[in-house]
Amino acid sequence: MITLFMGYDIIIIGSGAAGLSAAMYAGRYKMQALVIGKEFGGETATAGLIENYPGILSIDGYDLVIAMKEQAERYGAEVREGEIVHIEKSGKGAGFVVKTKTGEQYEGATLLFTIGSKRRHLGLEKEAELTGKGVHYCVTCDGPLYGGKNVAMIGGGDSSVKGVNFLGAYAKKIYFITREKEIRAEAVNFEQMQNLGSKVEILYQTEVKELIGENKLEKVKLSKPYNGLSGQESDELVLDGLFVEIGFDPDRNLPSFLGIELDEMGYIKVDNKMKTNILGVFAAGDGTNFFGSFKQDTTASALGAVAATSAYEYIKANK
Amino acid sequence: MITLFMGYDIIIIGSGAAGLSAAMYAGRYKMQALVIGKEFGGETATAGLIENYPGILSIDGYDLVIAMKEQAERYGAEVREGEIVHIEKSGKGAGFVVKTKTGEQYEGATLLFTIGSKRRHLGLEKEAELTGKGVHYCVTCDGPLYGGKNVAMIGGGDSSVKGVNFLGAYAKKIYFITREKEIRAEAVNFEQMQNLGSKVEILYQTEVKELIGENKLEKVKLSKPYNGLSGQESDELVLDGLFVEIGFDPDRNLPSFLGIELDEMGYIKVDNKMKTNILGVFAAGDGTNFFGSFKQDTTASALGAVAATSAYEYIKANK
Repeated sequence: MITLFMGYDIIIIGSGAAGLSAAMYAGRYKMQALVIGKEFGGETATAGLIENYPGILSIDGYDLVIAMKEQAERYGAEVREGEIVHIEKSGKGAGFVVKTKTGEQYEGATLLFTIGSKRRHLGLEKEAELTGKGVHYCVTCDGPLYGGKNVAMIGGGDSSVKGVNFLGAYAKKIYFITREKEIRAEAVNFEQMQNLGSKVEILYQTEVKELIGENKLEKVKLSKPYNGLSGQESDELVLDGLFVEIGFDPDRNLPSFLGIELDEMGYIKVDNKMKTNILGVFAAGDGTNFFGSFKQDTTASALGAVAATSAYEYIKANK
Repeated sequence: MITLFMGYDIIIIGSGAAGLSAAMYAGRYKMQALVIGKEFGGETATAGLIENYPGILSIDGYDLVIAMKEQAERYGAEVREGEIVHIEKSGKGAGFVVKTKTGEQYEGATLLFTIGSKRRHLGLEKEAELTGKGVHYCVTCDGPLYGGKNVAMIGGGDSSVKGVNFLGAYAKKIYFITREKEIRAEAVNFEQMQNLGSKVEILYQTEVKELIGENKLEKVKLSKPYNGLSGQESDELVLDGLFVEIGFDPDRNLPSFLGIELDEMGYIKVDNKMKTNILGVFAAGDGTNFFGSFKQDTTASALGAVAATSAYEYIKANK
């Protein structure tokens, strides 16, 4: 059975910082706004402690998106969970119809993609099997499980350094495995990691080639030998847990339904008004590359606000 | 006597939301950051209640910039008051020297303009004389003085409607004088104004031609007759207070010292990295027209963060 919900001025796909900020602005413009997100709060919800959102000294990411949700709802926006599986132009008018996995259909005059991007995986054989069984992608969710244990972080960028710092409060030992020659991180985060001293060991220009373990990660095979805890040089590293922070890939599937133009990395192309190449369709946040690789809560929120404003102007002009 | 302060990685001119957010990011990058602002907090400080900053349901603008200042200082940024009267390239290196009215000189490797824009005045004869004596530019600062009084607002855009709503809690009667045919405001604000009922009277396509009063505003002369409180049609309107919210003009003077390129309206031209046409000089916030007329705390903060990041990358690349 199909349930059709109509009459939205804007349907916002994605319930992270960009989507919720857009919903709040849309609500203030008296637009009927719907937010549909697959996982509530997007990346922000699982970001852990956020200390660089201007005006808020320190807040857990989940609390931040909850505050944004309340603020959006205060102005009448609806925030729902749901996975969009299809998008098409509306048969009747200039609008759009989105369909969820569970059979709901929603029709909106405009669409806003705030779909963020997906965490990158290692692409190793046992990765899926061992996910949640020693292999993890969310330090703040699963890091506290490894109190007094030996863990590794695979990464090289700022998120992975933040992850190591978070793990520093729990783990006994952290191997920081990076295929790079140097770590690229915010100075304040790098310094915090250095303060962890010998608890952190960085394995430069090293890759994990194999995950080993039955029903639970036991060890990993490295691309080159390392002097591990055993004191013996070996290309195997015994671990209790492994965290992966190697970046994100944007979702190319959802934009493809409408032929939305992407850049070479798969991010949605937008102009300064957050307009895509399709009339009435906007995009904002980490699913765009508007500020390059600089993807923050403050930029996502701002771009969401800009996009809602553009959608509002579009509807006013087309009334 | 000249006091020279050296060794800053970034000097941020302007201490509003953009400048303070930039300072916080710069501090996190371990840059030595200095913020110099003529009036602390910029427009945000006098904005009154802010309810559209994503993640904060409701906050006074002054409290918001104080929080941003604390956050910037937490990462080592210095925030000072001072009026910049001269800027030049440093004689020795690739940096810049700024001079304040009180004789201090500061040298920085990079410069960031977060100078906002100045409130527009009416340009009437007695305007300067009567400012603060019945004529005001800041509703949230001076509105509460007019409890039970008859006031007017000159405007037509969203800020003026917000101003009327603010005055609604104090004044007996509010004449909303606009030279436009219609009010352009956020729907939520317009609706709030409508809820004030007959307390607000809108005089469309009307201008104030003259300010009348000795040492204190007594009345204004309108461009066309109006049926005032007296019941008699007259081109004079007796008022206790007059508030002016007719927009902003960017400061063309400070950017001119370095030959920074402006757009036709006088805003600093920047690219997606907040770079100006001068190497090592960046701009962000309301002094740019990056998102057109959409100038908000969330956009200013985000652009400040982007600018600080670009300055950081510039310094790293030029070390």
